[in-house]
Amino acid sequence: MIKVEEAIAIIEANSTKMPWKSIPVSKALGYVLAEKVISPINMPPFRQSAMDGYAFKHGIRHQYDIVGISQAGDHSNFKLKPTEAVRIFTGAYVPNDADTVVMQEHVMASEDSILIAKMPEPFANVRNKGEQIKANDVVFEANTLITPAAIGFLACLGITEITVYKKPKVAILVTGNELVKPGKKLSKGKIYESNSLMLQAALQTIGINKIKVHTVKDNLKATKKALQFILKKNEIVLISGGISVGDYDFVKEALLKNGVEELFYKINQKPGKPMFFGSKKDTLVFALPGNPASSLTNFYIYVYSAVKNRMGFSNTNLLKIVRKLDNDIVNNTGKTLFLKALYNEISVEILDGQSSAMLNSFAVANGLVIVPEDVENIKKGELVTILPID
Amino acid sequence: MIKVEEAIAIIEANSTKMPWKSIPVSKALGYVLAEKVISPINMPPFRQSAMDGYAFKHGIRHQYDIVGISQAGDHSNFKLKPTEAVRIFTGAYVPNDADTVVMQEHVMASEDSILIAKMPEPFANVRNKGEQIKANDVVFEANTLITPAAIGFLACLGITEITVYKKPKVAILVTGNELVKPGKKLSKGKIYESNSLMLQAALQTIGINKIKVHTVKDNLKATKKALQFILKKNEIVLISGGISVGDYDFVKEALLKNGVEELFYKINQKPGKPMFFGSKKDTLVFALPGNPASSLTNFYIYVYSAVKNRMGFSNTNLLKIVRKLDNDIVNNTGKTLFLKALYNEISVEILDGQSSAMLNSFAVANGLVIVPEDVENIKKGELVTILPID
Repeated sequence: MIKVEEAIAIIEANSTKMPWKSIPVSKALGYVLAEKVISPINMPPFRQSAMDGYAFKHGIRHQYDIVGISQAGDHSNFKLKPTEAVRIFTGAYVPNDADTVVMQEHVMASEDSILIAKMPEPFANVRNKGEQIKANDVVFEANTLITPAAIGFLACLGITEITVYKKPKVAILVTGNELVKPGKKLSKGKIYESNSLMLQAALQTIGINKIKVHTVKDNLKATKKALQFILKKNEIVLISGGISVGDYDFVKEALLKNGVEELFYKINQKPGKPMFFGSKKDTLVFALPGNPASSLTNFYIYVYSAVKNRMGFSNTNLLKIVRKLDNDIVNNTGKTLFLKALYNEISVEILDGQSSAMLNSFAVANGLVIVPEDVENIKKGELVTILPID
Repeated sequence: MIKVEEAIAIIEANSTKMPWKSIPVSKALGYVLAEKVISPINMPPFRQSAMDGYAFKHGIRHQYDIVGISQAGDHSNFKLKPTEAVRIFTGAYVPNDADTVVMQEHVMASEDSILIAKMPEPFANVRNKGEQIKANDVVFEANTLITPAAIGFLACLGITEITVYKKPKVAILVTGNELVKPGKKLSKGKIYESNSLMLQAALQTIGINKIKVHTVKDNLKATKKALQFILKKNEIVLISGGISVGDYDFVKEALLKNGVEELFYKINQKPGKPMFFGSKKDTLVFALPGNPASSLTNFYIYVYSAVKNRMGFSNTNLLKIVRKLDNDIVNNTGKTLFLKALYNEISVEILDGQSSAMLNSFAVANGLVIVPEDVENIKKGELVTILPID
C-alpha cells in the first residue's frame, strides 16, 4: 500500500506524451500544440483604419476635400494631396499618403469636404501593418492549449492546420457477474451497471469522446482474453471492478499474465483504496474499484491527470484551491480522505453520504476536500485543500 | 446606449427556456433536467455486504460453521442456524437470517469454520435495502445539471431515459466584403475571416456542437434574404460584423425588415460597444461586433448566459470571482471595461494587448476583469471582480 502522493508521482512519471498529428484548426479545440506555430503573414496585413471616419495626412489644416471612399475589403490606394482626404471605414486600407484617421463624430462634413472640429493626434486611429504580429514571429509556443480565442487568432492569420498531441484511445473494461445493463429487468442479487456510463461521461468532459466499452464475465479466462485485445488497441485502459481482495477478483492476475507491469496496487486512501496501476509499453492500465463513488474519485485524482499529461497539457493536476471549512472533520482512519463537498468563493461544506457505494452526494458536489492521512481533526473555520471537479 | 447591467437584464428576461425532449441517459451529459426523476427501485435493491468477509447473526458466539458462499450477483438465501455463517463478498446478498458481516481480516478461518478475532458491532458492514434511495423517492429535482456522477447515479437505478431541456439550434451569419476564408490567398485590403471558427469553438465549450455558418456579401438584399431563412430555422442567431455605424453596415436594417424586434443597440462598454440584441418569436438575435476580441468578449458576457438560460441552467451567469489586482488600472472612458487577464488563487494580472482587434492576449487569458463605468482608478493591491472564461 502506498501513499496518495506516491501514487500521483508514479502515474505522472509514466504518463508520457502521445505522438503528434496534424489537424485542421477548425477541429482543434481542447488539443495541445506539439510544435510552435509561426505566423505566415503580418497582422494586420496592411495599415488599417481603426474607426469609421476620414483618412488624411496630419498637418496644420482643418479642412480637406474628399476624393474617394475606402471600404473594408477595398484596396484603392488613393494619391492624396495635402489638402485631400478619403472617407474610410473600420478595417479599411489607409492610403499610403495618409497617416491619421479622424472619427466621423469629430468632423463637420458636406458632400465633398470636411472640417475637422476636434483634431486627433498624428497617427491616431491607424493600426500599423504587423502591429498585432509580424510574419515569421511565433504565434504560440509548443504546449499551448487550443482555446476558442486561440482558434480565432490562428484563423485570422490564415492558418488552417496545426500539429498537436493526439488524444489517447481509451477503453473501459467492465467486470462483475452481479451487473445488469440499465433497461433490463433486475433479477434478485443483481445491481445495475453504471460505472461505464459514468466513466465515459467523465472522459467526455476532458475531450475523450470515442470510448470502447467491453464487458466480461468474472472469470480469469474471459478477463485475460478480453485484456489481450484491449491492451493492443488502446493507450489508456480503465477497468471497473474485480480488483478487491475477494476470491473471485481475477483482474490483477489477468493483467500480469498479459505482461502488464504492476506499478502499484492499493493506495492508503478512503474511498478508492483498491486500485491497481500498471503499464505495458505505452499503454497505461487503471483498475479502478467497483464502487461507483470510489471509481469516480480515483478517476478525478489519477486518471484525469494521466489523460491530460498524455494529451500534452502542462498543468495536468487539477488546480487545487483552498477554502474555509463549514463543518468539523474527524479522520480516525490513518488514510487520506477525499470528501465530496460543495464550495463557493468563501467556504466549503462537506456533504452527507460519503459512502463509497453512494453517488447521491457526488452528483451535487463540485469538489473533493483532501484530508491528509496524518491529520486527525480539522475544525470548522480552518482552511482545507479542495480538488475542484466542476 | 445602455449600461452593461441593463443589457444583461434584458437578455435574461428574454432568454426563455427551450421545450423539453426525452433523451437516453448515455447522451445526457451537460443537459439540464426539465422534470424531476423518481427512483424506480430501492438502492441497494437488497441487503448487501459492504465487505469481503463472513455473514452471520450477531450474538454471543465467536465460532461459526461455514455453510456456503454468497458471491456478488448470487441470490442464495441460505437458511442459517445461530451457529452458522456464510462466506460473503462485497456487494453480495446477505442471507435473511444474518444481520452482520465480519471483515475477513478479523477472523481466523479453516476450511469449514471461522473464529472471529475482532467482533464487529451488530449490523456492521451490511448496506440496508433502500439505504441510498428508496423506490419512488426523488432522485433529482427538475433543473439539475447532468454531470458524470449524475449519469452514474441514474444508471445505477436502471433509468435509461430522462426529460431535459433541448439545446437551442444556433446559426452564425458572417458579413464583410473584406473577409477571405483561411487557406485561400489573401489579396490586398482583405483579412482572414476568423470569427465564425472562434464562435463555433466557444459554443462547443458549452455543449452546442451543431452550428450552421452562413456567409453573405455586405449588402442589404443578401443580408435580408439570408436572415429570413436563418431566423426560421434557429433559436439563437449570432451575426458577426456589419453592425457598426459605417455606411455599409446593413445588418440592423436587414434585421428590422425581417420583423426582428430591437431590444437594445449599443452598450456603454469597451470593447464590444456596437452590439444589437433583438428577438423574433422565440429566436434571439445577437449582432456582435466584427472585431475578434470584441466579439469574443460579448460572447462570454452575453451569449454564454443566454444559451445556458435557454438550456435550463439555474446559474447562467458565469460565477464571478474576486482577486487582488497586480497592476494599476486607469479608466478614463466613462465606459465599463472588460480587460483580458490571467488570475490565480491569489491575484490577477491585466495582460498587454487590450485592443479590440487583438486576440493574442485573449488566447492566454483565463478571465475578464470588470471595471465599472463610474470607476476611474483601481490601484495595485485592490480587489477586482473577474469573469472566469477558462
